[in-house]
Amino acid sequence: MTITAEHFIAGQRSKAGTHRFSAQNPATSEALSPEFVEATLAELNQAVETADAACEAFAAAPAEQVALLLESIAEEILALGDGLLERAVAETGLPLARLTGERGRTVNQAKLFASVVREGSWVDARIDHADPKREPLPKPDVRRLLAPIGTIGVFGASNFPLAISVAGTDTISALGARCPVVVKGHPAHPGTSELVAGAITRAVAKSGLPAGIFSMLQGVSHEIGTALVEHPLIEAIAFTGSLKGGRALFDAAAKRPKPIPVYAEMGSTNPVFLLPGALQERADAIAQGYIGSVTMGVGQFCTNPGLVLGVEGPELESFRKAAAQAAQAAAPATMLNAGIAAAFEAGVKRNSSFSHELSRSATPADPQKTQASCVIFSTDGANFEKHHQLAEEVFGPTSVIVGCKDRAELERIANHLEGHLTATIHGTPGDLLEHQWLVQKLQRKVGRIVFNGFPTGIEVCAAMHHGGPYPATSDGHFTSIGTASILRFARPVCYQGFPEAALPPELQDANPRKLLRLVDNQYTR
Amino acid sequence: MTITAEHFIAGQRSKAGTHRFSAQNPATSEALSPEFVEATLAELNQAVETADAACEAFAAAPAEQVALLLESIAEEILALGDGLLERAVAETGLPLARLTGERGRTVNQAKLFASVVREGSWVDARIDHADPKREPLPKPDVRRLLAPIGTIGVFGASNFPLAISVAGTDTISALGARCPVVVKGHPAHPGTSELVAGAITRAVAKSGLPAGIFSMLQGVSHEIGTALVEHPLIEAIAFTGSLKGGRALFDAAAKRPKPIPVYAEMGSTNPVFLLPGALQERADAIAQGYIGSVTMGVGQFCTNPGLVLGVEGPELESFRKAAAQAAQAAAPATMLNAGIAAAFEAGVKRNSSFSHELSRSATPADPQKTQASCVIFSTDGANFEKHHQLAEEVFGPTSVIVGCKDRAELERIANHLEGHLTATIHGTPGDLLEHQWLVQKLQRKVGRIVFNGFPTGIEVCAAMHHGGPYPATSDGHFTSIGTASILRFARPVCYQGFPEAALPPELQDANPRKLLRLVDNQYTR
Repeated sequence: MTITAEHFIAGQRSKAGTHRFSAQNPATSEALSPEFVEATLAELNQAVETADAACEAFAAAPAEQVALLLESIAEEILALGDGLLERAVAETGLPLARLTGERGRTVNQAKLFASVVREGSWVDARIDHADPKREPLPKPDVRRLLAPIGTIGVFGASNFPLAISVAGTDTISALGARCPVVVKGHPAHPGTSELVAGAITRAVAKSGLPAGIFSMLQGVSHEIGTALVEHPLIEAIAFTGSLKGGRALFDAAAKRPKPIPVYAEMGSTNPVFLLPGALQERADAIAQGYIGSVTMGVGQFCTNPGLVLGVEGPELESFRKAAAQAAQAAAPATMLNAGIAAAFEAGVKRNSSFSHELSRSATPADPQKTQASCVIFSTDGANFEKHHQLAEEVFGPTSVIVGCKDRAELERIANHLEGHLTATIHGTPGDLLEHQWLVQKLQRKVGRIVFNGFPTGIEVCAAMHHGGPYPATSDGHFTSIGTASILRFARPVCYQGFPEAALPPELQDANPRKLLRLVDNQYTR
Repeated sequence: MTITAEHFIAGQRSKAGTHRFSAQNPATSEALSPEFVEATLAELNQAVETADAACEAFAAAPAEQVALLLESIAEEILALGDGLLERAVAETGLPLARLTGERGRTVNQAKLFASVVREGSWVDARIDHADPKREPLPKPDVRRLLAPIGTIGVFGASNFPLAISVAGTDTISALGARCPVVVKGHPAHPGTSELVAGAITRAVAKSGLPAGIFSMLQGVSHEIGTALVEHPLIEAIAFTGSLKGGRALFDAAAKRPKPIPVYAEMGSTNPVFLLPGALQERADAIAQGYIGSVTMGVGQFCTNPGLVLGVEGPELESFRKAAAQAAQAAAPATMLNAGIAAAFEAGVKRNSSFSHELSRSATPADPQKTQASCVIFSTDGANFEKHHQLAEEVFGPTSVIVGCKDRAELERIANHLEGHLTATIHGTPGDLLEHQWLVQKLQRKVGRIVFNGFPTGIEVCAAMHHGGPYPATSDGHFTSIGTASILRFARPVCYQGFPEAALPPELQDANPRKLLRLVDNQYTR
């Protein structure tokens, strides 16, 4: 599979810069060829300007054409075959089976969005008919739908090189909303990014839509990313990554003369609550599931359960022992890159200084293979409340178990939780009845509450919400995964007094697209 | 009608401060009694903390209880009778007939939101059922709805002392979403604010909901407003006012350790496009309607048409003459307060220095009565493009007519428009066909496009969108008027694997509230 180390700008390949960088195979610590070239500001500008010039034609495109584009992207990705997966394995150290699954998720995601676009009711069409006889003033004819907001800047994430990268939910949902996309590829997997960008570029060419609706630029410095956020023709940013990175983009966007939204998914510690009935029934099974979830994807999931809370007692002690054993048995594994591995080690060291290391993988981690051990910490509620650092995310296979002295202490800690993507409750139905306060509390703190499961493994569906109050995301109103993520890239536009023929089909009385619409306050097709 | 100059904090009256201020009758330039007292930071803190403490109980309240609260607010406002209208006339200089109409809008708005809350489908409930047999991984049960985001800080607007103030859309939609509200009353109509806050307080007391869900504090300084935005327990801000004021709140909110959304409606110049066919058919009638719209509410509407664009020619000249005559005939009228009148005069002076004063009210304005004349400016496209100041809003009864030398110049000006709340097109059906480019352009620039009408007079309905790209609003995704404004105050919360009985009624399989829901990708009740 040939990788040319070029950017894709509106269907054209480009390579104008001089600053070079390489990807590294984390499993071998070797540099991968070819060398890539940092995009220049002129290339970025060209990408954004051609995207902007394509906005109106794209906004006017029939839904079927957009749906076919998304399906074609799925086909072109599959057509890359094993070469894509092999490159992704080399660039990320993730196992082939995982990446094969992730490719399936990426492809299915594009098809799912195609079905959403084709069905079309997501535009939330609303019609209020005129009443010229109304007193004291006649009622005008008012209709609205959700329309594309313009060009979106997308930052590829490192931890899902396919599903949250160049052809991930951000790109697919933005294209589905008929917004052009300029992707800044993640520098840790530039070859994977290039292959996928080529697939999208081919799909765009086949679609008959303007080539400007998709560009992908490579870069390792902050300069090109900051320039993307600050470009006056960019209307929104989508990002998945660290709190520090997401907040920097948010701050840059908020300071613009014209501020724009930043949809940053910045991760969290995803607290898990162990209620008494569940501990009594199945402390061991929960511990197995817990360590499985902590080590899934080498702990490099935004929904990794980094914090476990329960009331101290023999059952929690059983859980702790079982978790310690399972952690010992967990094999060290290769992290995505050296930077992430170093940050993980620093985080583990920090947590060691504030709490007790309960257990870690028996086999030592091999630094040549950029490996991380599973490390589980244990502490009591009082110490946890004293050291707020223990509540901060450490990206990787580690977690802190907190034994609270009583329910009051548990409640106080729950009260002081910051925003998280998820929270999990393990309990019996009886526990749940007794802990309604906890569910009510968590509804204010998180985006998704999991009962008797684990937060890792996000279902891509209509009901998924992958977002939560700050600092989990920069805007808890929106999800970055699932079909509702398309709502980030559309805003209402209202037509008053328009003749039927001049209205978009979604708003015509005849309802040619058979959408579900709110007409005179009644939902109807 | 007794006005006690007290704040309302969670059902209690309070008056702890020492800094005093008065409202002024703009029609007489006399101070109105009593003196009001600036809220203290301790009072603000008490209001926000009791609101926060009420969040969970409010979030758990049945929809019917919330709907009854909103209807009860409407009844209590009506029960204030003429005393409310008289005080509002004295504090704003607006005519009694206008304020009577505005009270009707305010009351109907509360009832409309009650119906939305009672019907309930606005929570966008989505259910994806489990499939334990799915390969390679079982599919979990995932359900989501929109849940309240927490305590909202609302800033009353000066120009709609009832419909966009203490019991305006912001407060009513936030309460409808089950979010507690802390209002900072506008200092220009504190008596009106107090009366309405009393009505809401009585309705809350009758509702059985926690008293903490509503507080109203008075203040004239920026200190209390800034403290409201910066309070760590406030989750969002709603504001209608100037660009300068809205941006200051946005910046303060973005700089918080935990940033929060600011829904600021900051007004615009609302360009009006006169297409050739319409000018030929009815230049005079459009001119009459235009001056009527410019002077409506003494030009103090966010949707005031401050800019008219057409291609130069005899028809545009006819329009200009008819508009000049109508402006001469328009009587000067009392503005809301001395500050707004002074800003209007400064804006008129600024536009005089960049363009030609075409016409103004024949009767001189009386400064003792805080009056403003209608002032219409005229210029050509080249001069308009040179002086971007002419595109900036002047709040009051003034507008600029721009004669473009040809369609290319008109198109260029349309291309460079900033975000606006509205744009208006006057045309024949033939014009519209020929100017599809203009509709496509305006879809990117504004929130509402009006055809053959005028932008002032906003219908409060489901399809209304009163919002637009920056600088019209700080967040063009959301409307501040119409039933969709409730979406500002809710965010998705997702439940995974929950037992039926522990789910909110909106998400139970039995669908006890008969909501329209998206179940396994099908809309169904």
